[in-house]
Amino acid sequence: MTTAIGAQKKTRGRPKVFDREDALEKAMNLFWQHGYEGTSLSHLVAATGAKAPTLYAEFTNKEGLFCAVLEHYIARFTAQYQACLQNKSATFPEALEAFLTSIARCFTGEDTPAGCFIVSTASGLGASSQHIADVLKDQHAIQDQTLTAFLQQRQQQGEIPSDCDTVHLAKYLDCFICGMAVSARDGVSYDALFSLVKTTMGVLPQLIKNN
Amino acid sequence: MTTAIGAQKKTRGRPKVFDREDALEKAMNLFWQHGYEGTSLSHLVAATGAKAPTLYAEFTNKEGLFCAVLEHYIARFTAQYQACLQNKSATFPEALEAFLTSIARCFTGEDTPAGCFIVSTASGLGASSQHIADVLKDQHAIQDQTLTAFLQQRQQQGEIPSDCDTVHLAKYLDCFICGMAVSARDGVSYDALFSLVKTTMGVLPQLIKNN
Repeated sequence: MTTAIGAQKKTRGRPKVFDREDALEKAMNLFWQHGYEGTSLSHLVAATGAKAPTLYAEFTNKEGLFCAVLEHYIARFTAQYQACLQNKSATFPEALEAFLTSIARCFTGEDTPAGCFIVSTASGLGASSQHIADVLKDQHAIQDQTLTAFLQQRQQQGEIPSDCDTVHLAKYLDCFICGMAVSARDGVSYDALFSLVKTTMGVLPQLIKNN
Repeated sequence: MTTAIGAQKKTRGRPKVFDREDALEKAMNLFWQHGYEGTSLSHLVAATGAKAPTLYAEFTNKEGLFCAVLEHYIARFTAQYQACLQNKSATFPEALEAFLTSIARCFTGEDTPAGCFIVSTASGLGASSQHIADVLKDQHAIQDQTLTAFLQQRQQQGEIPSDCDTVHLAKYLDCFICGMAVSARDGVSYDALFSLVKTTMGVLPQLIKNN
């Protein structure tokens, strides 16, 4: 969505337009890199090229902008790799490996900061940012539930033993994903993450039995 | 170490003393909770009860204080759980489980913020904090090497198959530990983390074969 800025003023050239998607993308990269507290409004103004009043008019405040950025991130990344779990033509291990591989790729993408947006921005939140902490925690819980629902569905289809604790298995896989997020932020490459995904897939037969 | 403050002034009561260990403990909790960028000198002054000139005299600047805090953390926690790896009377699985359990306990300790000091403080570092990023990365690498050395030693003793890639196994376990750090920071309990440790231990026979 683009909004004409200063359209009421008579200007010679074309009116400057505020490109919402572009601003969200740039703000996302800033929050992703420096966290919520580490990103100031002046950083956001400089990165987006928008004026502070424009950002305020569009998003109310830094918290509002962050929530819009989170939605943008979910639409651009989370939805994409969660789609791997909905692929009915893939077997359980195929769908899970595609999901984990897609996450590893997201965490090491060249166009975005390394690591996971949600894990990185949830770190170092001050007491005054409790609402942001809650929003991020809720989003993490939703992702956990999506993974659990996928495992339960595959269990109903007989691809996972009926006595497997799918809630626990989802927590184990979530722990592994969070570990990949930290590793990626520390500079671990896609190839190295993919190798860790392969190791997890290698022990999957035992994971669905042992837990 | 304690240093007399204002000892040259005539005061009625005993001179105020600067308790270095106590200040480091309080500064550690602050950095652990809010990250490096999220902790200001005024927060540190308020938490430690020391005056800014005292902190400057002792640690030069915020960076110096952080490095002293990191050493304090290593001596208090890292050294403690790494000692589990040096226990010669424990079998390989016993030593590894004690190590992972000790980490899970540290990440969920009641007296300290949830999660891992190193993982939490490494998040959201700005471009001006490259030195801190490097110090934390080096420390993470040292921990990785300690774990690899332990695995190689147990491999030499015949407890791990000779064709197992111990460097890769250490990276997998490190990824799991980082995942526990994020989970703990998100509020996952010690019992839940211990349950994840048990799952990892359950697939250990396959992990040392498959990787």
